[in-house]
Amino acid sequence: MKLYDSKMAPNPRRTRIFLAEKGISVPTEQVDMMAKEHFTAEYTAINPLQRMPALLLDDGTVIAESIAICRYFEALQPEPPLFGTGAQEIALVEMWQRRAENNFFAPVAAVFRHLHPAMKELEVPQVPAWAEANRPRVTWFLDFIDRELANREFIAGNRFSMADITMLVAVDFMKPSRLQMPDAANVKRWHAAVSARPSAKA
Amino acid sequence: MKLYDSKMAPNPRRTRIFLAEKGISVPTEQVDMMAKEHFTAEYTAINPLQRMPALLLDDGTVIAESIAICRYFEALQPEPPLFGTGAQEIALVEMWQRRAENNFFAPVAAVFRHLHPAMKELEVPQVPAWAEANRPRVTWFLDFIDRELANREFIAGNRFSMADITMLVAVDFMKPSRLQMPDAANVKRWHAAVSARPSAKA
Repeated sequence: MKLYDSKMAPNPRRTRIFLAEKGISVPTEQVDMMAKEHFTAEYTAINPLQRMPALLLDDGTVIAESIAICRYFEALQPEPPLFGTGAQEIALVEMWQRRAENNFFAPVAAVFRHLHPAMKELEVPQVPAWAEANRPRVTWFLDFIDRELANREFIAGNRFSMADITMLVAVDFMKPSRLQMPDAANVKRWHAAVSARPSAKA
Repeated sequence: MKLYDSKMAPNPRRTRIFLAEKGISVPTEQVDMMAKEHFTAEYTAINPLQRMPALLLDDGTVIAESIAICRYFEALQPEPPLFGTGAQEIALVEMWQRRAENNFFAPVAAVFRHLHPAMKELEVPQVPAWAEANRPRVTWFLDFIDRELANREFIAGNRFSMADITMLVAVDFMKPSRLQMPDAANVKRWHAAVSARPSAKA
């Protein structure tokens, strides 16, 4: 088994934090995305979509997509549960993971990909108007989640879950995207708490 | 229990097809998105993100996000499995569901949302350059999945899954997005097969 990992990119970090929370260690190969190593023929054979991370199993099967890799390990080692247990919690973790990903992480990434000079050769074409359209969505979601976090400890409820991992990675990705954190006291309390977990350093 | 459904939109259709495959019937309330009923105070109280569909449980809990609703029913009634069984199949269904959603459904929807005159008041601002940037991604993914389908019956393997539902809904959404299906024989064979299932009419 081998995990193709990339230290600087946000999606591989989601998988690393997940594995750290589970206490699972996987042999890793670094792929330098800024050097376009994910565009090489070797990596394209692993993942034709040229995205990171990817997990190569011993039988040659490749599991791409950060969340799919996390679900693989959740099924192999259910404890501690990071996708919920029981129908209702499973559904709420999925709902909040998807909200954090589609309504926050994606807008933050759109600002980065379509405005940052370092992405000029990686995001073709850059569409600056699309970045600008996403800026207010970032602020809107942070205000929304700030009100939600007034009533509970974590993004999807009172237990740390995959939704917190996505939200943490996305909040931290605001910095390279040159986005400012608004005055959101509950988000800041939550961010300090999840950042203090050992897994945040993974 | 009540499902807030919208007949014309693609995401609610994903949930309807899933429920039809499971043989599950849920009381439904129609929300007319073209009449902006998902922006009313009543629906915003159900889902502050003003997106469809949403499932209201008897205890007042709301599960939004089509896939989260599907996972709720998968946990309640595992048969037939539509998210896979066993770590490897679970991971592969998630991988293909995400690929179909992020690398195909999202580009198709971007073309619709950012070019179609009917979306002028619903997608603010429309960014036509973003629609155009997504056009080649649609074709690229269809070519990719056409090669994949040369070797297997369904999107994620030899069993119908959530990945087929996402892909079917997205392929059918090419029509209102005014996108042409390329000459992809395996995709056409697969599309004819999944369209012939009774669930496709849901």
